[in-house]
Amino acid sequence: MALGREKLERMFKISNLKWKTSITKVEPNRITTRGYPQEDLIGNISFPEMVFILLKGELPEKNEARMLESVLVSFCDHGVTPPSTQTARIMASAGSQLPACIAGGLLAFGKNHAGAIERTMKLLQEGIGRSKDRIEDIAQEIVNEIFETEEKIPGFGHRYHNADPRAPRLIELAKENNCIGIHTQLAIAIDKILFNLKGIRMNIDGANAGILSDLGFDWRNGTGIFMIGRLPAIISHVYEEKTREEPFRKFFDIDEIYYDGNDEKRILD
Amino acid sequence: MALGREKLERMFKISNLKWKTSITKVEPNRITTRGYPQEDLIGNISFPEMVFILLKGELPEKNEARMLESVLVSFCDHGVTPPSTQTARIMASAGSQLPACIAGGLLAFGKNHAGAIERTMKLLQEGIGRSKDRIEDIAQEIVNEIFETEEKIPGFGHRYHNADPRAPRLIELAKENNCIGIHTQLAIAIDKILFNLKGIRMNIDGANAGILSDLGFDWRNGTGIFMIGRLPAIISHVYEEKTREEPFRKFFDIDEIYYDGNDEKRILD
Amino acid sequence: MALGREKLERMFKISNLKWKTSITKVEPNRITTRGYPQEDLIGNISFPEMVFILLKGELPEKNEARMLESVLVSFCDHGVTPPSTQTARIMASAGSQLPACIAGGLLAFGKNHAGAIERTMKLLQEGIGRSKDRIEDIAQEIVNEIFETEEKIPGFGHRYHNADPRAPRLIELAKENNCIGIHTQLAIAIDKILFNLKGIRMNIDGANAGILSDLGFDWRNGTGIFMIGRLPAIISHVYEEKTREEPFRKFFDIDEIYYDGNDEKRILD
Amino acid sequence: MALGREKLERMFKISNLKWKTSITKVEPNRITTRGYPQEDLIGNISFPEMVFILLKGELPEKNEARMLESVLVSFCDHGVTPPSTQTARIMASAGSQLPACIAGGLLAFGKNHAGAIERTMKLLQEGIGRSKDRIEDIAQEIVNEIFETEEKIPGFGHRYHNADPRAPRLIELAKENNCIGIHTQLAIAIDKILFNLKGIRMNIDGANAGILSDLGFDWRNGTGIFMIGRLPAIISHVYEEKTREEPFRKFFDIDEIYYDGNDEKRILD
Repeated sequence: MALGREKLERMFKISNLKWKTSITKVEPNRITTRGYPQEDLIGNISFPEMVFILLKGELPEKNEARMLESVLVSFCDHGVTPPSTQTARIMASAGSQLPACIAGGLLAFGKNHAGAIERTMKLLQEGIGRSKDRIEDIAQEIVNEIFETEEKIPGFGHRYHNADPRAPRLIELAKENNCIGIHTQLAIAIDKILFNLKGIRMNIDGANAGILSDLGFDWRNGTGIFMIGRLPAIISHVYEEKTREEPFRKFFDIDEIYYDGNDEKRILD
Repeated sequence: MALGREKLERMFKISNLKWKTSITKVEPNRITTRGYPQEDLIGNISFPEMVFILLKGELPEKNEARMLESVLVSFCDHGVTPPSTQTARIMASAGSQLPACIAGGLLAFGKNHAGAIERTMKLLQEGIGRSKDRIEDIAQEIVNEIFETEEKIPGFGHRYHNADPRAPRLIELAKENNCIGIHTQLAIAIDKILFNLKGIRMNIDGANAGILSDLGFDWRNGTGIFMIGRLPAIISHVYEEKTREEPFRKFFDIDEIYYDGNDEKRILD
Repeated sequence: MALGREKLERMFKISNLKWKTSITKVEPNRITTRGYPQEDLIGNISFPEMVFILLKGELPEKNEARMLESVLVSFCDHGVTPPSTQTARIMASAGSQLPACIAGGLLAFGKNHAGAIERTMKLLQEGIGRSKDRIEDIAQEIVNEIFETEEKIPGFGHRYHNADPRAPRLIELAKENNCIGIHTQLAIAIDKILFNLKGIRMNIDGANAGILSDLGFDWRNGTGIFMIGRLPAIISHVYEEKTREEPFRKFFDIDEIYYDGNDEKRILD
Repeated sequence: MALGREKLERMFKISNLKWKTSITKVEPNRITTRGYPQEDLIGNISFPEMVFILLKGELPEKNEARMLESVLVSFCDHGVTPPSTQTARIMASAGSQLPACIAGGLLAFGKNHAGAIERTMKLLQEGIGRSKDRIEDIAQEIVNEIFETEEKIPGFGHRYHNADPRAPRLIELAKENNCIGIHTQLAIAIDKILFNLKGIRMNIDGANAGILSDLGFDWRNGTGIFMIGRLPAIISHVYEEKTREEPFRKFFDIDEIYYDGNDEKRILD
């Protein structure tokens, strides 16, 4: 007996499914995220709690939500010094639309800029996996290894601050919120060694890398969390550029460019 | 008398300043945003309050901060149906890095997708400027004008929901938080007319456009605020794609593509 | 009688097709673009001919292909002065990957930067549609209208050159290649008026807008064609930045930023 | 004695130069690229020759320019199957502007998509550096090493074609143009081994990786050269989407999404 058309259609569609998700289920007039109807989430949870639900799949404890709130606020802005802010503003000046300016800003989150938070989280999360009894020993081992490669240790030192004021404030809040775990302890242990040896201090990335790791976030999402915190500032800088500056302004003059290429030659002699 | 070198240098630098901002002042070991030292903001204000400080320049009232928190949560996610989520996931599957996937997601916030919030805010903000005594009259005039152009009215109707469950929840919260102003009243008035005429209901963009306008946000930042709310979900989808799906998967098969171009021909006959 | 499974499957797939194209047909071991097998195109046509096939659907005349070649070469580079080059290099310095740097460069092609070619093409293509007998009259009408709005006329004048050397060279080549049509004539007519009135000369965008319009390209693709010509330079600048400069360099110093925001205040008094 | 103001100003500016380039020198009414005045390049060199000038700093031999022309044409298009084409079209459907769609397309050039050309070039360029007498021995060593890691060998095999028709055509043209060097020989040697062992054939990336390496291009620019060749098609697809399809179309239906997340729960019990 032939199958009914409807049944066949369903059968083929199901065998043909290309898209699968566990984040949000969309049905007509019904949207549930991680199992919660969205009208239940709206007005009942905070934005940092929403970040937990989306990135970790479940609601956090209240102290964890408060801690993430502080982390997000700490990423807020660093004026026009970051490459991301500069590119977003240059694009705004060139007359690009807001989404292009924002995307352009985020594309400057390269390994030397926002990459530090991710690399520090990876360093701490992999460091904790080492078979050492004491966190101090892991810290020493990490420092030794990086010194051998002559690379900079991510999360420590800052090109504008020798004592980043955000780092101690975040550590203080981690203590207050009872959110100091092994990753933050490891970051603090590295800080002690580096400060004694070289006078280098933990920066915002070092502090947040420890805290976010202790909150259970995968290092692969570190740059993303930084972006959540920084996005409002990028929007604000684009708006400032568009409303307060002349369009298509010259960010430098022609005589501020140094040319060190070929002398003049001709294509046809 | 000749000026000292230091004074001259400062003079030239100042006359040469290309970058100016009123958002954040960066000095060695000191970062102040809108006048507040950042270590003072971290731990003392919420993320939505930070959004106010960055986009509007000052701290909001407590009820306003709660309202913005609900708005940000309401933008959280709509599964894999939005173009932005699809493009972010396709890029993740292609092996692009997280910042590229996120930027790529946000680049799909075009005028047909996230543009609705911006256009609705513009509609309401310009609508309020009309010289009418009653909000109902402005609403009627707006509806008449759009019907004449045969365009869809942004902020009302949804391609998946005929009654978007987020909209009434947001209006309810706006009442609870004492945040209903003239823009939201105008959105509600338009909703009444459209529902009576065509059975079309306010969607999330209509509700948030009214609320954000009443909170004092410029419509030019509407898409940006949507992005702040949606960004955590985009990160989550990229992570889901990278951790649960095969890399470089085929989103459709070769025989699911319809070719309607030229018949075969040869370059050299 | 029941349909066979294979037939049913095909039927459902076909009714379910979401993707349609007339550009390229892909079959196993066979790829045909605009009807031509690609192995037939490779080695037999030039890159500019390929651009014609892709954007206009058919092969051009030889003189048209030569003309487009000159146009593409003319877009090659303008050093580090364009916003697109600056953003690509800033991203490269921040450690972003090549595709991110290139995408970031192209996102700076806003309405004030690369938008000029598109707007000039639109101006010329719409101008030709006006019911005037003589091209000189259309030119005069366009100039009058723009003067009334006090906007700058796109395609004429340049922020670094008062006589852009590329424009007369392109017009000369258009004559040599027998590619001067009504759009280029209109651009030349506008040039005469503007030069007499204000000493302003046609720039590269004005010349190319006329030529590309005469070659039959839609103004909506103007910025795209500019990008094809400019892309090699963006790659070259990214490479130069990555190989010759220090990573994460400071494009300006902290004391080159002017802060004009709020005086310092405290969150808790 | 005090220095004159002009001299001082020049002194400070020069000590303050942040931007340096060897690609193009921009002076008022004079633009020289790699030493050639641009009006001399326009009309006298081909687009592929321009690519050489920009990426390698000098003009190529005529056979090299012809070879690069074939390589660029070979990258032209692969219908709607590549992630980059899909994302560009989805963004176009969402109503994003052309630069955003193009940037969004290029952001899908991840390591699994366009990354193959770069990785193959790296493989061949580093392979040639090995201390082996015969190219066949290097090829065997490379194949052995990759088989041990169970990874796929980039540049060989294709998810839609078991015999990519572009690869033999490119090799044929490399012979005709006298452009077969050690890198292409190595690619051919790997092809022989893989075909004998597994029936896997060289694809377009394998052929072009060899040829581009022999033309002297750094593997770090491989993805960039692919982008130059592919960009016209991306523009064409965006145009096709915008002119032939309904805006904001659904690329799949709500019942084509499989949800495998949490069962429904409530926030407040």
